[in-house]
Amino acid sequence: MRVFIAGIDGYLGWPLAIHLSARGHEVAGADMLLRREWVAEVGGISALPIASRGERLRAFKDATGEELDFCVGDLTDYQLVKSRFQEFQPEAVVHLGQMPSAPYSMMDQAHCVWTQRNNVVNNLNILWAIKEAAPGAHLIKLGTMGEYGTPAVDIPEGFFEVEFRGRKDRLPFPRQAGSWYHQSKVHDSHNTLFASQIWGLRATDIMQGVVFGTRIAEMGDDCRLGTRLDFDQCFGTAINRFCCQAVIGHPLTLYGLGKQRRGFLPLADSMQCLALAIENPPEAGEYRVFNQFENAYSISELAHLVKGVASDIGLSVEINRYDNPRAEMADHYYNPDRQHLLDIGYQPTPDIQSVIREMLLDLIDNRARIKAHADALIPDIRWGGGRRRSKVIG
Amino acid sequence: MRVFIAGIDGYLGWPLAIHLSARGHEVAGADMLLRREWVAEVGGISALPIASRGERLRAFKDATGEELDFCVGDLTDYQLVKSRFQEFQPEAVVHLGQMPSAPYSMMDQAHCVWTQRNNVVNNLNILWAIKEAAPGAHLIKLGTMGEYGTPAVDIPEGFFEVEFRGRKDRLPFPRQAGSWYHQSKVHDSHNTLFASQIWGLRATDIMQGVVFGTRIAEMGDDCRLGTRLDFDQCFGTAINRFCCQAVIGHPLTLYGLGKQRRGFLPLADSMQCLALAIENPPEAGEYRVFNQFENAYSISELAHLVKGVASDIGLSVEINRYDNPRAEMADHYYNPDRQHLLDIGYQPTPDIQSVIREMLLDLIDNRARIKAHADALIPDIRWGGGRRRSKVIG
Repeated sequence: MRVFIAGIDGYLGWPLAIHLSARGHEVAGADMLLRREWVAEVGGISALPIASRGERLRAFKDATGEELDFCVGDLTDYQLVKSRFQEFQPEAVVHLGQMPSAPYSMMDQAHCVWTQRNNVVNNLNILWAIKEAAPGAHLIKLGTMGEYGTPAVDIPEGFFEVEFRGRKDRLPFPRQAGSWYHQSKVHDSHNTLFASQIWGLRATDIMQGVVFGTRIAEMGDDCRLGTRLDFDQCFGTAINRFCCQAVIGHPLTLYGLGKQRRGFLPLADSMQCLALAIENPPEAGEYRVFNQFENAYSISELAHLVKGVASDIGLSVEINRYDNPRAEMADHYYNPDRQHLLDIGYQPTPDIQSVIREMLLDLIDNRARIKAHADALIPDIRWGGGRRRSKVIG
Repeated sequence: MRVFIAGIDGYLGWPLAIHLSARGHEVAGADMLLRREWVAEVGGISALPIASRGERLRAFKDATGEELDFCVGDLTDYQLVKSRFQEFQPEAVVHLGQMPSAPYSMMDQAHCVWTQRNNVVNNLNILWAIKEAAPGAHLIKLGTMGEYGTPAVDIPEGFFEVEFRGRKDRLPFPRQAGSWYHQSKVHDSHNTLFASQIWGLRATDIMQGVVFGTRIAEMGDDCRLGTRLDFDQCFGTAINRFCCQAVIGHPLTLYGLGKQRRGFLPLADSMQCLALAIENPPEAGEYRVFNQFENAYSISELAHLVKGVASDIGLSVEINRYDNPRAEMADHYYNPDRQHLLDIGYQPTPDIQSVIREMLLDLIDNRARIKAHADALIPDIRWGGGRRRSKVIG
């Protein structure tokens, strides 16, 4: 299948290009390489060294025998998106090309507005370009489990049957996102559902959990094929950040009580699920929502998992609680569905400890890079506004 | 109270400035005068001649004795919004400064993206400027009843208690908006709720029905104080368009069966409700939703109302059904609440026929202006894409 990846240079986009090519798909993509700039802006660096675009193209050719059509371009430029779709005629479009960090969007007015404008406009452009240049293409749009927030009821996959004052309807499940970034994803979900209703667009909206992991099998031992891994307060998500902290002897940073529960999944599972969505497209006009995660864990549970695996390989790890810079519920009910992907064949990684072990071993060789940017590990972007470095509270 | 009106040159903004000033409030505002350009762009014109900004300022001075602080400026420019709030120190901000037309937003990619970018960014700017330059100010944000769509259950005011799989929660009522414009208002509602949660912003989110009417009492007989009234396919809403059609002998244009039900309210009721919201502010951190309409009517019922009143004053009126350019339910349940405004004193206009009579009499003098732009009365912007003039179907 011809698959276009918007955001092909990112943490997920790059391994997805490799994974889909290995499965026999023809891949093209676009990226502005902004993730590399954002991470530098917040004082971070990829814990794993990553190749330049040029090196990635050569490595891709060496690994697959194929030239990768990876253009540098801004998805908020409609003519660019439309002309790329006209030329490539994608059968599937995977939209990973967004600013993906909650704290980055919470920094100040400029970062908030930039995030929402970028994400809303580039998603609209992709919807319009499918309609005008590649009708029939299946959009696989990356949303986030964070769109739902933490309601006191179960979280279905996108829609629920509800009874209200004696009448019944099937309604979109309400979204209660917790950052300007997460709100931008909610806006995109609404826009995508609407496009499918008026244009007959086929769309899979992925509500993805937090991804962790340093590699997928297809990367083999060619380090030019490796993907990035961030650990700074903006782009470093929980397990990835914990593993980086573990290898440099920095205490794992729990925010608040650490009882927040979220869905998580290994990088390889994310690739597996995205491929399943692509290879099992919905009907024309169908908008379906997949909650995509291996399982739900509390942050504290994950910190202890990392601590345990680290200890097995001889690393001694402390866990510290920090005052929480975010506005989020300290302790809450959390029970999201994830049946749709299982129905089309998703096989969750049975043992996430082995994934964490692999991560720690990959990261140990890169201690110096992490240590040199360890300042970026402690959050100071506060949901209430302004900057104040979080302190240890226990 | 010091009230800042974003969009002070518009159909609602201008009469609100007059109404609030008459109630003793100190008013300031900003507007880019874009509504005047949009209506010209789509081949329309205000059926009632409106004064230039300069004439409006002089008329305001003559009527109230006050200089009106009405700056020409773009609300997507954050520095402008922030500096205006710093100087004026508003206690209430009424946000009417958006692109308000569904068909305009549905025209093509450029109009869709322009609408969402403009509306989302300027609403974010107003949220941030309140936080940074006028903390404590109460935001009265204009949303629309169209955000809810037409669910098969009752429509509460913003939130509902729901039971799902045996557990209960109070959740935002799901939004199912029917145009790119309406979607932009949904995005703004989500962003505004979030700002109130993280910053303690006090906000009233008005889900307003369709407004009709040519005047409010405070305009007296100074025609320089008059507000605009549009009848083109983009900016002319149902009753206003019907009245313009009635006075020039054009058949009233029902889309589809005309069984669509929506909330409607006279211009004077809109002013009354906005003043009530301003004068009864919520607590800090409170986000409340007011469904704002006099009553729900079917479009066909309204056409027959206009026909009846027109007949009383000697105008003979036909009603034609046109193939519906929009994607909307032909026939549906519709039962929205509107209790919150009644609770703080809203007294709905008891007799909308007298409002329609007043409109027809105001418009009869302006037949020539309407006739000269009658081409703009027939819709050709289609929800499925492209342009095709609707035809009479019965």
